[in-house]
Amino acid sequence: MKRTIGIISLAAAAVCGLSAQQQLWGPQMPVSPQVNPDSTVTFRLFAPQAREVKVWGDFLTTSKADSTAAPAPMALAEGVWSYTTPAPLKPELYSYRFVIDGVLANDPANVYQLRDVATVQNLFLIPGGNAAWYRVADVPHGSVSKTWYHSPTVGADRRVTVYTPAGYETDKERRYPVLYLLHGMGGDENAWSELGRATQILDNMIAAGKVEPMIVVMPNGNISQQGAPGETAEGFKQPSFNLPNTMDGLYETHFPDLVAHIDANYRTLPDKPHRAIAGLSMGGFHSMNISRHYPAMFDYVGLFSAATTPREGATSPVYANPEAKLKAQFTSSAENPAGAPKLYWIAVGEDDFLIRNNEEFRQQLAQAGYPFEYHLSEGAHTWRNWRNYLTQLLPRLFR
Amino acid sequence: MKRTIGIISLAAAAVCGLSAQQQLWGPQMPVSPQVNPDSTVTFRLFAPQAREVKVWGDFLTTSKADSTAAPAPMALAEGVWSYTTPAPLKPELYSYRFVIDGVLANDPANVYQLRDVATVQNLFLIPGGNAAWYRVADVPHGSVSKTWYHSPTVGADRRVTVYTPAGYETDKERRYPVLYLLHGMGGDENAWSELGRATQILDNMIAAGKVEPMIVVMPNGNISQQGAPGETAEGFKQPSFNLPNTMDGLYETHFPDLVAHIDANYRTLPDKPHRAIAGLSMGGFHSMNISRHYPAMFDYVGLFSAATTPREGATSPVYANPEAKLKAQFTSSAENPAGAPKLYWIAVGEDDFLIRNNEEFRQQLAQAGYPFEYHLSEGAHTWRNWRNYLTQLLPRLFR
Repeated sequence: MKRTIGIISLAAAAVCGLSAQQQLWGPQMPVSPQVNPDSTVTFRLFAPQAREVKVWGDFLTTSKADSTAAPAPMALAEGVWSYTTPAPLKPELYSYRFVIDGVLANDPANVYQLRDVATVQNLFLIPGGNAAWYRVADVPHGSVSKTWYHSPTVGADRRVTVYTPAGYETDKERRYPVLYLLHGMGGDENAWSELGRATQILDNMIAAGKVEPMIVVMPNGNISQQGAPGETAEGFKQPSFNLPNTMDGLYETHFPDLVAHIDANYRTLPDKPHRAIAGLSMGGFHSMNISRHYPAMFDYVGLFSAATTPREGATSPVYANPEAKLKAQFTSSAENPAGAPKLYWIAVGEDDFLIRNNEEFRQQLAQAGYPFEYHLSEGAHTWRNWRNYLTQLLPRLFR
Repeated sequence: MKRTIGIISLAAAAVCGLSAQQQLWGPQMPVSPQVNPDSTVTFRLFAPQAREVKVWGDFLTTSKADSTAAPAPMALAEGVWSYTTPAPLKPELYSYRFVIDGVLANDPANVYQLRDVATVQNLFLIPGGNAAWYRVADVPHGSVSKTWYHSPTVGADRRVTVYTPAGYETDKERRYPVLYLLHGMGGDENAWSELGRATQILDNMIAAGKVEPMIVVMPNGNISQQGAPGETAEGFKQPSFNLPNTMDGLYETHFPDLVAHIDANYRTLPDKPHRAIAGLSMGGFHSMNISRHYPAMFDYVGLFSAATTPREGATSPVYANPEAKLKAQFTSSAENPAGAPKLYWIAVGEDDFLIRNNEEFRQQLAQAGYPFEYHLSEGAHTWRNWRNYLTQLLPRLFR
């Protein structure tokens, strides 16, 4: 009954569902993208019947604005359209798509893609510099769990991403500090671990001894959602940027439910000196408001390109008396014996559309004499900045 | 200093990186796919400059073969190409792509995509029937962790997906049985939780009381890989179907390292009556060989469209003396006091390219008088069958 397994090789394509596609397209699939030795990048698409193909992505951005550079025309030769960047690209995680006869299309030769709200783009990485932290390296890896917690305040189960550092499983007595890391408008509990490369950044910076081993909790910041698109009973609904009840205060007041769940189910150090909260854009707004509404909860606060002012007409008590709340956060009292947070860290890009709000908030903090750090970077309201800010903030936590 | 947050709405697109794309394409993005009330489906693509657009996917398959139906031509009207299936589709999770002027392209209006080896396709779900298990429902959800274990046998850390059922975190004394669920050639540790909808199937069938709460371990079956493409130090390498050392016996002999890791780090019931192993195609081959090489380890064995014979020239002791090993698995002895597994469950499609091998293995088991079940289904070597087999096998485990 011994029979060769050759039949599997013959039917290999069928095993993984590639048969017809491989027959029709596979042999002609060119390498794309190709990172050349000089850090220029070549994109290729086999499309002999197309009339016009362009490539479009953030690697084209040379001005201060983001993602607004025009798509670059590709040239056709022997059925393959190609484009090579005229200059080397700086180390960074980049995204791109093709425009094939006017239609935005992903690169069929590149399976690496990320969704940002309602857009899916291909990825590539130019290693080196700060982007070295974004690579998967041969270091001990933490675990990333997609799990759920119940919020009595909301009356629902909610999905959350939890990173536990390498060694968490084996060193069963050790307790860890916790960073709560929040996404921006339109994002979800997958944003930081995927778009933000938080898993890789943490694995690599912990392995390098630059960052304390910590638990990182990446919740869903849209209080009307139980979880990311496709992960709830709403089904495969097209993601929306405009969600109900955003920034109406309920997210902030539900937050202690999440903290209680994490402290009950993970080996945390459940006190202010071992809790940090940071977020980008709307997540910066949430971090600012949660940390000042619950001044005894977080000793480290990070605001990345934060929205700093409430929605017009927001009536939640969370947003009432902001000056008094800020004073309570930065002043020792019965409610907040430890007083000011050990680190109040603000970063924003000089071309960010929220720069003026951040500058005003900076003045407010300075005039009141509260301790804080303010980091003005290049660039605007982009994941490129937020990943970078994370690598700057992490070494400052819990030390 | 109170300022309206209107600026955020104005710059909403920029917040999530959509600005230019939304300006150029967003308003014209049609709804696609649209599942109509009668379970026909309409696909749409805004592509006024394209010369020819088709839609291609497994929903077109009407014959017994898989994914070989020709792409369906779409019709152009007012810039939008569209196609509606001529008949209602049966409940199922389907995949598709467009062919735009000869180029395979994903649907830009549908962010739901799955990678199968080197191919990324869009998804949609027709609910009902068995496919009701594939939906995310409003039931208690388990956790899905992407974590790592060290294998001394391989000398490497390896990535693994672990599902723990709802209640695992809160009921801290309870111990659970474990199913090891293995993928096929070209797959990886993401395959069952994503392509296989294992998370949804388990959540839903456990909530319905049809399946025992269990831990499900979904490892990487490619012994030359540490983890899925993009998740290792190999970087964003194009996934390959042909990997070194596949089915050479090392995977089987490394398996006790994984079982030991799971038993050490999860609240398992660490004995034969509470361990199952099942897999598809190459994973069926692994399940068959691991369970008979370690006959005291698994009381439940599931072979889905399994490869049943070793590669030609395979010299590992794992594959030596298969009849004697099978006898040892099905017979009580000092090495295997419990004797035959409680359930030895085989399923294969009548059009599967491995049907003859499975029929021969069936005869071998029957002639030897070993107890087993053999389920012949419609269809071929497809995820459609494997998801279905999982829903059939799960209720039979640990009861």
